[in-house]
Amino acid sequence: MPWVDDGSAAALTDLYEITMAAAYSADGTTAPATFELFVRDLPEERAFLIAAGLDDALRFLEEFRFEPGAVEYLRSLESFDDSFLADLSELRFRGNVWAVAEGTPIFAGEPLLRVTAPIVQAQLVETFLLNTIGFQTLIASKAARVWLACDGRPFADFGARRGHGADAALKGARAAYVGGAAATSVVLAGIEYGIPVTGTMAHSYVLSHPDEYSAFTSFARTFPEGAALLIDTFDTVEGARIAARVAADLADEGITIRSVRLDSGDLGALAARVRDVLDDAGFPEIRILASGGLDEFRIARLLDSDAPIDGFGVGTELSTSGDAPNLEVVYKLVEDDGEPVMKTSTGKVTLPGAKQVYRTTSGDVIAGDVIALAAEDPPDGTPLLERVMRRGRRTVPPEGPTAARARTLAALDALPEGLRRLEGWDDYPVSTSNALHDLAAQLQSWR
Amino acid sequence: MPWVDDGSAAALTDLYEITMAAAYSADGTTAPATFELFVRDLPEERAFLIAAGLDDALRFLEEFRFEPGAVEYLRSLESFDDSFLADLSELRFRGNVWAVAEGTPIFAGEPLLRVTAPIVQAQLVETFLLNTIGFQTLIASKAARVWLACDGRPFADFGARRGHGADAALKGARAAYVGGAAATSVVLAGIEYGIPVTGTMAHSYVLSHPDEYSAFTSFARTFPEGAALLIDTFDTVEGARIAARVAADLADEGITIRSVRLDSGDLGALAARVRDVLDDAGFPEIRILASGGLDEFRIARLLDSDAPIDGFGVGTELSTSGDAPNLEVVYKLVEDDGEPVMKTSTGKVTLPGAKQVYRTTSGDVIAGDVIALAAEDPPDGTPLLERVMRRGRRTVPPEGPTAARARTLAALDALPEGLRRLEGWDDYPVSTSNALHDLAAQLQSWR
Repeated sequence: MPWVDDGSAAALTDLYEITMAAAYSADGTTAPATFELFVRDLPEERAFLIAAGLDDALRFLEEFRFEPGAVEYLRSLESFDDSFLADLSELRFRGNVWAVAEGTPIFAGEPLLRVTAPIVQAQLVETFLLNTIGFQTLIASKAARVWLACDGRPFADFGARRGHGADAALKGARAAYVGGAAATSVVLAGIEYGIPVTGTMAHSYVLSHPDEYSAFTSFARTFPEGAALLIDTFDTVEGARIAARVAADLADEGITIRSVRLDSGDLGALAARVRDVLDDAGFPEIRILASGGLDEFRIARLLDSDAPIDGFGVGTELSTSGDAPNLEVVYKLVEDDGEPVMKTSTGKVTLPGAKQVYRTTSGDVIAGDVIALAAEDPPDGTPLLERVMRRGRRTVPPEGPTAARARTLAALDALPEGLRRLEGWDDYPVSTSNALHDLAAQLQSWR
Repeated sequence: MPWVDDGSAAALTDLYEITMAAAYSADGTTAPATFELFVRDLPEERAFLIAAGLDDALRFLEEFRFEPGAVEYLRSLESFDDSFLADLSELRFRGNVWAVAEGTPIFAGEPLLRVTAPIVQAQLVETFLLNTIGFQTLIASKAARVWLACDGRPFADFGARRGHGADAALKGARAAYVGGAAATSVVLAGIEYGIPVTGTMAHSYVLSHPDEYSAFTSFARTFPEGAALLIDTFDTVEGARIAARVAADLADEGITIRSVRLDSGDLGALAARVRDVLDDAGFPEIRILASGGLDEFRIARLLDSDAPIDGFGVGTELSTSGDAPNLEVVYKLVEDDGEPVMKTSTGKVTLPGAKQVYRTTSGDVIAGDVIALAAEDPPDGTPLLERVMRRGRRTVPPEGPTAARARTLAALDALPEGLRRLEGWDDYPVSTSNALHDLAAQLQSWR
């Protein structure tokens, strides 16, 4: 505290996971159960999602355990008996997991993750899995839209300060990178995940100097191999002139200015004037970066109007997925002791049985998915879920976000044109197999 | 990892905080600077905010240090010299802090926190302070609206699974409690913060039994002093009948059913029918809880229609502040080496000088605020910022969320009626003192 260490992760759970575990234990229930994690409906602002968070989720499952302090806390609630608490402190996750690889586009109803384990184990990991996979998928999906808008120009995640807590700043940086960001401002994301980090200066740095010339000079001397200067503290075009003067004055010392950053005002009009100032001063190689309230729509408009911007910093809207800040991600029991089960609550029907998703392509472009029972004869297409854990141990090596990011970028290239638009997209065909349809109809009629 | 331990918190920062620190160090700048943390404009969905997150922020400042691993990582970037990195590894926060108490309503432009320290120290803590205070204030403010809607009935935070990462689940539970929630589902929030925890069962529990009768019976026997049963897995009214039957059948064993929970469908209409079923069966004392896609508007509509609901579980919309998922929280330099400074970027003007906020009341109700210079003769009203840290040590004892929650509830009672509405509220008068106004005009004319 105030940070949470590894051993606390199991206790980052809803209490009802533990009350249910206690009830299962009292019943002596040890049969395997299968849960699937999926998004019920996509937000109306999203044509597709990018799966993310799996590697962190698997690490959580590998290390899952209740620490003595957590067990003692549960004892203090006077709701759980000693025998259950003793079992809980010994409990580890020993289940099998199948999952969609990070960086894969997914659609409503398609399982991202399938967990099969004794029901107590499978149930106790629910809250954390939903939290980490749901959040990272949320941010990677937003980042992919920003990537599409940037049309080849790089963008960096600047959103840590507005992220929802520290874990969001860290895992959000990871997810943004998986979704296509070129870099992040978050130092810890560089340390933990090896993501490229980037950063310039804040307005306060300029304000703490007598004027912009002295601020820029000091900063450039500290970072002689390519400083990035923030030029909008007072007047952006004047700031560009001063940056050019500093670049000229310090050239003799072997100091180069790599870029200037605009963070306020009419970014498109200002970028054009700044480009002229820099070019006229003989610095066509100094890049113009833009930030300040950007999202995919604003970036697309700037580039549509030919604003000479070479890269973007995207903060709040990326780190909070501001237009669609949550996903309807759920984790549902689909098989119990080998038998398919089905919930029929109003508006919340869950299809029964362990499933697989098959994706077909047409040329280089994805053409449609079929959600089928995992046990049926496979239809055409490539299966999306692969086995990633057997009896609590990974069957695939840990994977950093760089491999996942490459998968995302390849997948975005393989999206149909009608899904690559920022709005007004086409439907993507996702159907259920006949066998799955029949099983659901059969279970529904039994009720 | 995947969780971040205490020592990583300093590295949860934007890289530019460190590049600026390096430039300041190279310049030999050690003069004190004052930064203020405030929200530029309120989201249009909010009439007021509830300050939260201070206690965690102070704990962060007390423990602030860069671990050897972080320093080595920075060295690997080949941008920082050895002397700076050596200083960085020794650096601790030794500044003075003034702050608004958690649970206090605040408005646009009012400093929640004021930090005075050598500029390197004051700058390096920016990202984390914005992240933790911004997020907790966001969630406490949403929770306060839910509290107003609940009109005396309790509500619990059920939002961990949809929160933005693990820290959001934990600190969101804390902030929801500060904002008025009666409890949370998050076990770790009980452990770390002593917040009351609550939980019932999931649909999967019902599905893993042959029928609802056996599921409810097993669960009630495990929690004989008052189980809460989820009755909407198949048909809510039938579920209520079965719950009543279980309550009757187990009464001989001394087992009581405390409540039933509805999680889908037309909650108002179903609650009325469930109430009738339970009353007719002789169980008027079994409470009806409702959850499932709730927010303050839906709760207000349910209660307006006299739905017999005794308590609410609020998830996603609370834990992500779904209608307003971010605050325009900023941390701005206002004084440097004793001199007031002022940024004049388009749309982002910051008022200069260290400030205090004075709040006046009319009877029991708050009537208006004046933002003034901290050094000027105080106008009428109660000052909102108090000293909380001197030279890096707290001058007030650590405070758990219970005291902050009590402050919130008292403050909500003291809000003018025109601010207590969920929409269409009145403006609350916030003005600046003449001295502050004159100073800003003077600095602006100098440019």
